[in-house]
Amino acid sequence: MGSTEDLDYPQIIMQYSNGFLISKVMFTACELGVFDLLLESGKPLSSDAIAAGLGASTMGMKRLLDACVGLKLLAVEMTQEGALYRNTEISNIYLTKSSPKSQYHIMMYYSNTVYLCWQYLADAVREGRNQYERAFGVSSKDPFGAMYRSDEEMLKFMAGQNSVWSICGRDVLAAFDLSPFRQIYDLGGGGGALAQECVSLYPNSTVTIYDLPKVVQVAKEQFVSPEEHQITFHEGDFFNDSIPEAELYILSKILHDWDDDKCRQLLAKVYNACKPGGGVLLVESLLNEDKSGPVETQLYSMNMLVQTEGKERTAAEYSKLLEAAGFGVIRVKRTGKLYDAVLGRK
Amino acid sequence: MGSTEDLDYPQIIMQYSNGFLISKVMFTACELGVFDLLLESGKPLSSDAIAAGLGASTMGMKRLLDACVGLKLLAVEMTQEGALYRNTEISNIYLTKSSPKSQYHIMMYYSNTVYLCWQYLADAVREGRNQYERAFGVSSKDPFGAMYRSDEEMLKFMAGQNSVWSICGRDVLAAFDLSPFRQIYDLGGGGGALAQECVSLYPNSTVTIYDLPKVVQVAKEQFVSPEEHQITFHEGDFFNDSIPEAELYILSKILHDWDDDKCRQLLAKVYNACKPGGGVLLVESLLNEDKSGPVETQLYSMNMLVQTEGKERTAAEYSKLLEAAGFGVIRVKRTGKLYDAVLGRK
Repeated sequence: MGSTEDLDYPQIIMQYSNGFLISKVMFTACELGVFDLLLESGKPLSSDAIAAGLGASTMGMKRLLDACVGLKLLAVEMTQEGALYRNTEISNIYLTKSSPKSQYHIMMYYSNTVYLCWQYLADAVREGRNQYERAFGVSSKDPFGAMYRSDEEMLKFMAGQNSVWSICGRDVLAAFDLSPFRQIYDLGGGGGALAQECVSLYPNSTVTIYDLPKVVQVAKEQFVSPEEHQITFHEGDFFNDSIPEAELYILSKILHDWDDDKCRQLLAKVYNACKPGGGVLLVESLLNEDKSGPVETQLYSMNMLVQTEGKERTAAEYSKLLEAAGFGVIRVKRTGKLYDAVLGRK
Repeated sequence: MGSTEDLDYPQIIMQYSNGFLISKVMFTACELGVFDLLLESGKPLSSDAIAAGLGASTMGMKRLLDACVGLKLLAVEMTQEGALYRNTEISNIYLTKSSPKSQYHIMMYYSNTVYLCWQYLADAVREGRNQYERAFGVSSKDPFGAMYRSDEEMLKFMAGQNSVWSICGRDVLAAFDLSPFRQIYDLGGGGGALAQECVSLYPNSTVTIYDLPKVVQVAKEQFVSPEEHQITFHEGDFFNDSIPEAELYILSKILHDWDDDKCRQLLAKVYNACKPGGGVLLVESLLNEDKSGPVETQLYSMNMLVQTEGKERTAAEYSKLLEAAGFGVIRVKRTGKLYDAVLGRK
């Protein structure tokens, strides 16, 4: 940055302006099932075979595959039969639908919902509010009413969040020793992937997923096996309904959806419900104290502007919210991954 | 890539999925006029002052500015008055509207037209054709009819192309010594930025911009000064109307819009019109011969799928098209920037 060469030819600006092309190439290869087909096939395939297998045009597929090679999401080898494509290790693990660490669902949520919301980023910055009205013609006033505007959208969102916890869940739950807490409520626990990580990591715990009735319904039907006896459910709206007593409350990616007032309201309710000696675990992506980074978190804070009423915050901002509600002995742990952990005790 | 660490946490996939967020943050800061205001102000400004100056929300602007700092498009210093933001050198040169090297217009074209077309990339790959119908409700059959669907869209496209030539034009024109050619036709020369680079680099040349009547009209009114006596205009459709005799024809980013048949037709007409000893200069982004890269060109080839009837090609593919039309002594020069040059002689 800043060298004469860079000033003569702005590589960085070109990279940034190509960003959406890169996102969409990866999202599209996922959506069309390229990585799944290559995994199932068990051997490298030609572009024509992949196009035929996925019902796509040969001219479009060839270019998509080559772009994926350029992005190192696929590898290619030249043979007598022509170019043969195969998954890279990263793609096998993260971009196939069947992998335990699959990011497929969060990609689809980004590609089909978030991408369109971001078309209206300039309006979001001008107005200081989310853009569901412009993007999807639904009221911007109740963000979760908008996000869950159809069962299909709600399902996509829940599956997307589960993808995230499949790679980040264990680290945020292992950031502190939570084994003293047996009775855990995961407020807004959605599809239950974090709850599942929790009972796996802390075999003596039971986790109750507290979420809206329609979310709980889908979580039971589609995501959490009835065999999973350590996980139970509680239907409710944690702003308007009561919160039962427990030893630990997990709020993962909840406070970032709301403004400071709403966060204070919610944390006060949680504090009142919490057993003495209990605690609350916030799982969020933390901004640096001077808000100079990390850039991913800054970008997600823009996303909170476009999609919610909230923002990403610094560790000090979360600590202040916790203290205002009565929590003490606040500890912060950065995991080095996207989501961090803040623990407050009653 | 491929280390145990990468496989445990897919940084590359997260970077790629954030690509569209990065693009849109930069595009939006341009659109709202952040870089222009900071240039005009001549001193660092607070987030509140920038929000007020641009009629934007304070909460949205603060986050946008911090994200731009994370992307190194702005710098921030902490003072007694709080955080003050200023442009980086790169932003001053490339992201302000008034700069001679401004990329503002191509950013706006990307942000408001191309971004929406790419929402339908999966459909483009399935169908093997452009997506104007889905993105903008206009027929996909005539790409330039669709691209120029309103005067405003045509103007945005022309201004965007001019941005590109302000940073890449000189290199492609200097790739070969074109001084022997005095009479030059720039076929599809649009807003004329490449023609202007050409007469500046080759003071003995005259360049005729050959383009559709409505494009020529706008080029004369808005982009090319009447004082510029070395530049003239010719209104026509080079597929359906005649092409006058000249010494050199420039086809910059023209062949990539069309399939091989259309390219052969056009090059045959150019060959017939060309004076003996004359030539044709193709300006295009060249794919590697095995199509393994460059990744930017692979991405642009996807864009040709989404927006046109064409594709990006290798040097050998362009040479073959030129030879089929009768051109010989074909020379290829990679510039190291985004656009390269291929010269064929009659």
